[in-house]
Amino acid sequence: MIELIQNGGVTSPKGFIAGGTFAGLKTREQDTLDLGILLSDRQSSIAGTFTSNKVVSPSVTLSRDRSRQGIGRGVIANSGCANCCVGGQGLDDAKEMTALAARHVDCSEDDILVCSTGMIGVELPMALIRQHVSNIKLSKDGGSSFAKAIMTTDTRPKEVAVSIDIGGTKITIGGAAKGVGMIHPNMATMLGFLTTDASIDPDVLQKMLSKSVNVSFNMIDVDGDQSTNDSVLLIANGASESTLIELDSGDANEFNDALTYVCTELAKELVRDGEGAQRLIEVMVEGAKDEEDARKAARSVSSSNLVKAMVHGRDPNWGRIMMAIGKSSVMLEESRIDIYINDIHIVHEGVSIPFFKDAVISAMSAPEVKFRMNLNLGECSATAWSCDLTEEYVTFNSAYST
Amino acid sequence: MIELIQNGGVTSPKGFIAGGTFAGLKTREQDTLDLGILLSDRQSSIAGTFTSNKVVSPSVTLSRDRSRQGIGRGVIANSGCANCCVGGQGLDDAKEMTALAARHVDCSEDDILVCSTGMIGVELPMALIRQHVSNIKLSKDGGSSFAKAIMTTDTRPKEVAVSIDIGGTKITIGGAAKGVGMIHPNMATMLGFLTTDASIDPDVLQKMLSKSVNVSFNMIDVDGDQSTNDSVLLIANGASESTLIELDSGDANEFNDALTYVCTELAKELVRDGEGAQRLIEVMVEGAKDEEDARKAARSVSSSNLVKAMVHGRDPNWGRIMMAIGKSSVMLEESRIDIYINDIHIVHEGVSIPFFKDAVISAMSAPEVKFRMNLNLGECSATAWSCDLTEEYVTFNSAYST
Repeated sequence: MIELIQNGGVTSPKGFIAGGTFAGLKTREQDTLDLGILLSDRQSSIAGTFTSNKVVSPSVTLSRDRSRQGIGRGVIANSGCANCCVGGQGLDDAKEMTALAARHVDCSEDDILVCSTGMIGVELPMALIRQHVSNIKLSKDGGSSFAKAIMTTDTRPKEVAVSIDIGGTKITIGGAAKGVGMIHPNMATMLGFLTTDASIDPDVLQKMLSKSVNVSFNMIDVDGDQSTNDSVLLIANGASESTLIELDSGDANEFNDALTYVCTELAKELVRDGEGAQRLIEVMVEGAKDEEDARKAARSVSSSNLVKAMVHGRDPNWGRIMMAIGKSSVMLEESRIDIYINDIHIVHEGVSIPFFKDAVISAMSAPEVKFRMNLNLGECSATAWSCDLTEEYVTFNSAYST
Repeated sequence: MIELIQNGGVTSPKGFIAGGTFAGLKTREQDTLDLGILLSDRQSSIAGTFTSNKVVSPSVTLSRDRSRQGIGRGVIANSGCANCCVGGQGLDDAKEMTALAARHVDCSEDDILVCSTGMIGVELPMALIRQHVSNIKLSKDGGSSFAKAIMTTDTRPKEVAVSIDIGGTKITIGGAAKGVGMIHPNMATMLGFLTTDASIDPDVLQKMLSKSVNVSFNMIDVDGDQSTNDSVLLIANGASESTLIELDSGDANEFNDALTYVCTELAKELVRDGEGAQRLIEVMVEGAKDEEDARKAARSVSSSNLVKAMVHGRDPNWGRIMMAIGKSSVMLEESRIDIYINDIHIVHEGVSIPFFKDAVISAMSAPEVKFRMNLNLGECSATAWSCDLTEEYVTFNSAYST
């Protein structure tokens, strides 16, 4: 059974400490955190998933390489600057950031990964990072400071932690994440940091992370754009002294369920806090021929600008949903499709049911709008999340760098 | 040499007449045209390209089938109702529309195609169409009425015509089109009608149409969504008595250039008149490994919400262009990429050139903003068009059906 930990985060699992500091990377306001470190007290298994964008930050390049070793201690992260499209300097700076963190916490720099998020095309102000890194006070209570230090246009930090029982021992999984623009399936300007005190070998950990990310972070969308910097890291240090979790075991399934829960909660929080977002959209596709089709159809609907604008306007204009399913190129028979909006059945066998429009508009005024579509062709299903498209999104993104 | 015809349109080529009428399909205002017919005075070659959306209007199904015969006389078109997602009734209504038009102009219904655009999910008000179809007065001057009758959220009709010389005989190509939401590469809620008095066999005509559509209508984007109703039809009636244009001949190349010109002008007009649009964006990718890569990269940049919002804000935030190239999955080397905004060189070998920001902001205030990217990997290039993303787009699409 998955037990939610009140005010939990990345330092909820045993053996993790974290902290954040102001370094002046994001703003001049001294109470704004923009540089943080997350650390395990021992060598740990490390897994990571990274952006599929072909233009990547050297911070991603370095962390991807180091995560392949499968072993490490922690990560240094900054907001305000993406360390991307800056030529050869970017990799030098990424390496120096890990060296500065390693010196501060007294470990090898090879055991530290690095994540950066913010403006593309400007160099990291390394002088400020050198000056401020030693101000990071790492502690058991520092999870929230770390979660705040990675925020860019987020309006609030995103943290969650849960516990489950593995062979009689309580293990904990914690997480923190940031968004919020450029979010699209297959990773986006988002960083996710997951920690656990379970005992898991690196190769098993990587498989479990990929599986959970696939149905959570990879199923969200804010604006269809993909970032150059997205990374999700999972560090497992075994500090709970639980039994080793083996691949495909019952324990592994339970761990994966809990990990998916943490990832999904964080992913939905990212979408809820999407730039200009006022409503969470959940799109569930059922009855697809195979899982890939279910995923494609769900993401096609959730990422459609017209669907997102219609949610903003509380407009049950279901033709747009049909359009978005149709353009996804999945196998379908129009005359079999059923559509529900917040459980109100509005389309049956591809044709509109006479529904009371005011009731559906009322249902669409809820903070979470759920579209459920049954293709009635097979047994596979998938869920995707996004947010409504608002005037504020446009205003915000027309005036980001200037 | 391509000669532009002042105030030209679909009835500029010899042997074509057209007209439009109010039928009450779109609004109650009696001066709004919403039903039209375009007709050749003789049996003609017909070619068509249609939406790739899997949910299609029965109007598309019927026209696609009939266009495969390669022979016909004309088309009836309505705005206000897409005749889509209405079950079996849709095909009956599409057929009846062609029968009504055929009776009115005295030809066989098999020679008439049909196009519908407007709301999805509501049935065509056939009683109104039966009542009003005979009010359509077809004439040599009726091209503009036809162009107005197909408009939905368009703010103005889109028409163009050009002449070229084929073997000493002047031939003319005319066109009309409508947009404006749901526009995305591979066809969108757009209808395009092209006419010519050149002599061309149906199979050659189809190849030439596909070639021109591929670099024009298929390279535009308003909001990334694809309609269920998009169609581009080309009717060639030979009335100019020019020599038959054979495949791959010099004449064919000249005809294709002129046809591409007409399609591109109409496509750019669609984008300029995109919902809420204030600026035309032209994205040219050069130096790609192959043509497919050039097209993919150009469309990835032109359809990015973040790029479109940045044009709206006149913000030279070139990191978003790099992001959009990177997510297109084309072959690239970041350190070779050059970027120009309205010919101002701002990125060289993947890294920012120190540019005077106010000058670029000033350049981005023009009604047409051109992004040129050189991947410096090969010889292939492609151009795509879109419009800026504005608050008005969101406002408009939040309140479309309600």
